[in-house]
Amino acid sequence: MNSFGRLFRVTIFGESHGDSVGVSIDGCPAGLPLSAEDLLPDLERRKGGMQKGTTPRKEDDLPLFKSGLFNGHATGAPMTILFENNNTRSADYEKQRAVPRPGHADFVAHKKFRGFEDYRGGGHFSGRLTVALVAAGAVAKKLLSAAVSAGSEPGGIAVRAAITEIGGEKDTEKGLQKAIEAKDSVGGIVECRVSGLPAGLGEPFFDSVESVLSHAVFSIPAVRAIEFGTGFAAASMFGSDHNDAIVNDEGETRTNHAGGVVGGITNGNELVFRIAIKPTSSTPREQQTLNWESGKIEAFSVKGRHDLCIALRVPVVLEAVTAIVLADLMLLERRIVPAAG
Amino acid sequence: MNSFGRLFRVTIFGESHGDSVGVSIDGCPAGLPLSAEDLLPDLERRKGGMQKGTTPRKEDDLPLFKSGLFNGHATGAPMTILFENNNTRSADYEKQRAVPRPGHADFVAHKKFRGFEDYRGGGHFSGRLTVALVAAGAVAKKLLSAAVSAGSEPGGIAVRAAITEIGGEKDTEKGLQKAIEAKDSVGGIVECRVSGLPAGLGEPFFDSVESVLSHAVFSIPAVRAIEFGTGFAAASMFGSDHNDAIVNDEGETRTNHAGGVVGGITNGNELVFRIAIKPTSSTPREQQTLNWESGKIEAFSVKGRHDLCIALRVPVVLEAVTAIVLADLMLLERRIVPAAG
Amino acid sequence: MNSFGRLFRVTIFGESHGDSVGVSIDGCPAGLPLSAEDLLPDLERRKGGMQKGTTPRKEDDLPLFKSGLFNGHATGAPMTILFENNNTRSADYEKQRAVPRPGHADFVAHKKFRGFEDYRGGGHFSGRLTVALVAAGAVAKKLLSAAVSAGSEPGGIAVRAAITEIGGEKDTEKGLQKAIEAKDSVGGIVECRVSGLPAGLGEPFFDSVESVLSHAVFSIPAVRAIEFGTGFAAASMFGSDHNDAIVNDEGETRTNHAGGVVGGITNGNELVFRIAIKPTSSTPREQQTLNWESGKIEAFSVKGRHDLCIALRVPVVLEAVTAIVLADLMLLERRIVPAAG
Amino acid sequence: MNSFGRLFRVTIFGESHGDSVGVSIDGCPAGLPLSAEDLLPDLERRKGGMQKGTTPRKEDDLPLFKSGLFNGHATGAPMTILFENNNTRSADYEKQRAVPRPGHADFVAHKKFRGFEDYRGGGHFSGRLTVALVAAGAVAKKLLSAAVSAGSEPGGIAVRAAITEIGGEKDTEKGLQKAIEAKDSVGGIVECRVSGLPAGLGEPFFDSVESVLSHAVFSIPAVRAIEFGTGFAAASMFGSDHNDAIVNDEGETRTNHAGGVVGGITNGNELVFRIAIKPTSSTPREQQTLNWESGKIEAFSVKGRHDLCIALRVPVVLEAVTAIVLADLMLLERRIVPAAG
Repeated sequence: MNSFGRLFRVTIFGESHGDSVGVSIDGCPAGLPLSAEDLLPDLERRKGGMQKGTTPRKEDDLPLFKSGLFNGHATGAPMTILFENNNTRSADYEKQRAVPRPGHADFVAHKKFRGFEDYRGGGHFSGRLTVALVAAGAVAKKLLSAAVSAGSEPGGIAVRAAITEIGGEKDTEKGLQKAIEAKDSVGGIVECRVSGLPAGLGEPFFDSVESVLSHAVFSIPAVRAIEFGTGFAAASMFGSDHNDAIVNDEGETRTNHAGGVVGGITNGNELVFRIAIKPTSSTPREQQTLNWESGKIEAFSVKGRHDLCIALRVPVVLEAVTAIVLADLMLLERRIVPAAG
Repeated sequence: MNSFGRLFRVTIFGESHGDSVGVSIDGCPAGLPLSAEDLLPDLERRKGGMQKGTTPRKEDDLPLFKSGLFNGHATGAPMTILFENNNTRSADYEKQRAVPRPGHADFVAHKKFRGFEDYRGGGHFSGRLTVALVAAGAVAKKLLSAAVSAGSEPGGIAVRAAITEIGGEKDTEKGLQKAIEAKDSVGGIVECRVSGLPAGLGEPFFDSVESVLSHAVFSIPAVRAIEFGTGFAAASMFGSDHNDAIVNDEGETRTNHAGGVVGGITNGNELVFRIAIKPTSSTPREQQTLNWESGKIEAFSVKGRHDLCIALRVPVVLEAVTAIVLADLMLLERRIVPAAG
Repeated sequence: MNSFGRLFRVTIFGESHGDSVGVSIDGCPAGLPLSAEDLLPDLERRKGGMQKGTTPRKEDDLPLFKSGLFNGHATGAPMTILFENNNTRSADYEKQRAVPRPGHADFVAHKKFRGFEDYRGGGHFSGRLTVALVAAGAVAKKLLSAAVSAGSEPGGIAVRAAITEIGGEKDTEKGLQKAIEAKDSVGGIVECRVSGLPAGLGEPFFDSVESVLSHAVFSIPAVRAIEFGTGFAAASMFGSDHNDAIVNDEGETRTNHAGGVVGGITNGNELVFRIAIKPTSSTPREQQTLNWESGKIEAFSVKGRHDLCIALRVPVVLEAVTAIVLADLMLLERRIVPAAG
Repeated sequence: MNSFGRLFRVTIFGESHGDSVGVSIDGCPAGLPLSAEDLLPDLERRKGGMQKGTTPRKEDDLPLFKSGLFNGHATGAPMTILFENNNTRSADYEKQRAVPRPGHADFVAHKKFRGFEDYRGGGHFSGRLTVALVAAGAVAKKLLSAAVSAGSEPGGIAVRAAITEIGGEKDTEKGLQKAIEAKDSVGGIVECRVSGLPAGLGEPFFDSVESVLSHAVFSIPAVRAIEFGTGFAAASMFGSDHNDAIVNDEGETRTNHAGGVVGGITNGNELVFRIAIKPTSSTPREQQTLNWESGKIEAFSVKGRHDLCIALRVPVVLEAVTAIVLADLMLLERRIVPAAG
């Protein structure tokens, strides 16, 4: 299903070269002050614009509110936001129909949807749909900040993601430069930190904070791994080193190896997790793949310009899905106070 | 919520020192041949029995079928399986009520459930509940194998998990020995491989295979990270190295960096993922924690015997949740053929 | 939530005087042949056009496919269909802001959404949204008929609803005439019959066929009651009269007091149920209501032209939600065979 | 699925002649004071004991709490309650295997579960499972009353159901007497009234109060119809008669034809609805049915003693499912305040 969330439920739709992509948000509390302008900064960040290593499609990405917004506030009814696709050239894809691009979903989509999939530019699998995620994320961020202004979390909930590594280099410019020189695409690591969360979000077992966050995070294309707190490094540690000593009534801990989650529940410390992004599948280098019509392996070259490092575009998307998850958890724990009428 | 799955839905309940723990499985197709004996091997593996580094509670772990089983077959109605708790001594926990054990859920449970939680032995957060997961997993495995015998997957679906590292050592005996010598607990890495899966399982975005698998996997206590295929290593790779070239109509790839999932959908290759298990929170070493009655930090020592390396117990649990997820995905894609009446 | 269905999930959104109303359908199997033309007959029926007693808003009701449709077939990805609102005059509603119309949702919407609701023309509560239901229903009908042509139900599944009573008169023209003469609105009864259903749809208890059908049916504005088979009359009958004797292996029964559902499961006979529609809340007669600003009861008259008998518009909507429910049940029971690729 | 509810989720399981029947409640707020004694009055009412026209199985119906209860309060973890089946004689059912009882689920269960169903005494379809509903309902009632004592609803929420008609007679004793004399079973009507509800529960369209209530209500065996407020009678009324004039700020209306629900949302007035119960399928009169082994129609007589009028047992079950629905809606609207820790 293309929906996520229990009380703040996000449904996405659209294809890369179809009429439009969009999102429907069900459960946004009535009274949240909101306008298209609130979405623009994150939509702009997603485009990557001037960023080295990104080659954005020239889309306006103007959010069109089709429902759920009235007089500058959420109405409480489903909020549908549409983005038109203006900048699409599909002819190339028609020609390449029988040649699944390595690393892309072309082959699996063909198997799963038996040839009826919209194959142009990845269709529904396209990274183009992250514009819908970012829009919903901006609404969720607004909601988290409304929770704050309503006094429930004095310090404020802040969701911040950033690239920490490209191509194995912590100096990300260096990692990117390596890829440019190699005329190849490259992967990276993105870290997300959330401050201001109350203790008590999440559930034991199936709806642990890690469960719902990772569920949402793996909906971002190209994510291959996620780790919380010390993550994989924890596997090499002794317990006396890994355990975080609680030092006060608020649950503050001396260290934060847990990354803010214990037993699947937030413990009031900073939430910290990292994700691995694979190299952009569309690399400038020639590759080999099957032509399913001829049944032969053939050389394959990506046409047009593509991001060398898709990880550069991910932070704002990661913030978005994180905010969506947290808005849902905050509503479930009744930590978001609806604004006065 | 304590439920997981759309068509094969598993609900778990119980507390470590309560009357019992159990699981209710809704959606198991009528006609699946099943008996308590089918569950015993995995239940036995979970106990860890003779394994160095594990100290199992002496529970019989006898599965009591309360519903859904009749004349040796699943009826199609909900199947509830109960495990009685026989071997509980709660007095210690009463004494330690105000002293949350570092790394355990004691503190967050207290915050979340406002003092009403069953705090004895971790209550509902206890690893004891993995017995319910393992039982449901054994049913799911039976279902996956029924799919096979019904002819849908000639080669057979096999789910296999194993420890690949303890305390940073690929020679796991060595890693465990280090912990024994340090009188400390230690973490580890568990890898899961699934062969025989068809291409086409999973959905784009929110219900990607990685999304639903990681959702379920993080319900296992002590899991801190998950990676698919090359995982975190992908972040350092070039695209031309990472992309897996498709070599035939079945979607077989020359390499398997993707770990069997592309675009959130299985591609017919082996499914491969790894998880990081933190060191057992209950370490023999003295630690510090808050006493929330006195408001003071105090020294804390774990009473009784505990697993030094909880990762040793995880493989069978990881297989279980993986099988549960895959049974659900196979049913959603109509790849499981109900047995004849 | 504004969604319905497990495998064929329908999400509706929009407001009467907002930008548009629409529907997103998730789970429509790839390969279903479909075009806007397939929706037009039911959309036309819903308008009521020339029908006596109805006064349709002059909307084009042109379905705009925003996603999920490609080359004349469903892609398997979410299908979003939009209807623009062209014919809206909102000024009247602004003036009447503090005067909740009797029988309408104005008052409860104000309570629930604390003044932030879009109050123009009923906002999200408006019957205007039934255009979205009818669109989704037309897709569901197409799917049910695809099931048939794939050979699973040789006789064909046909969903037919019709008015059987207006204002207590089985001669509906007479009932309508009474209302016209009384210058008042009037209620009616609509019956739905579905032939061609296989036995075995539905679940015991919570997801009985009656449960899911009534759930969907009560989403139609103005529905006040539903009865299956003999319905309320069954309460006066003896068991030996009410029980339907099974006469052959197919489960055919001599009588059909059960209306095609026994124990919550379809039994292969015709599915029959009736619903009661209340009189249109907007009656030409003067009424009294509260002015919540003045705190006084005042006389209230409906402006503009409205349907005298909203029941006249209901049959196509009832067919729509019925088809949506049945498409979902047929998918759940694997009775819909996806078309070949 | 055998679950109902979004935040207060009830899962039932068990078979008439199996080991036990039971219920798992997920989402009961921590801190609710509760004991087995709280359930006994409703469990006793359900048995019907001394009531004319009922012939209860002699079951102890002792609720066994398997989880979720600790020191006299709900813990916040799933609460599982089991009822053992002691009084089962299955031999008769074995003999009658090929003879589906008219009006019962025997035939459809056989079709749906392809012969693997537990057919003894109706198996999972049995009215025996209403004991699980009644147990969950008693917990829900406690929760509704806790909401009250926490001050949210000063007047108190009271759910009351009663028989209003048997065999078409408002003098129910007379209706029952008719059945006794006719040596036949007979149907009836049950009405439910809920006072003390706040305005604003429910959602527009799919999750209207009527939708979720009817969904739950049709899970009660033998229910054939439901009507809210004036219900079917509304179909014969004029709008000026049916509309309820709002008389004050609280939304109180002069009349209550709406039965407390407008636009799918509670309006603060008394919630009123009625259901039709078919005559008990097991009538003392000889009937005809198919023998699916011989392929012949044969005479069929019910063995043993059965309720003449199952409607007599329904009120407490109707209260239970109503309370379950309302507990869920109150939690969704944050109208239930958790007790202090």
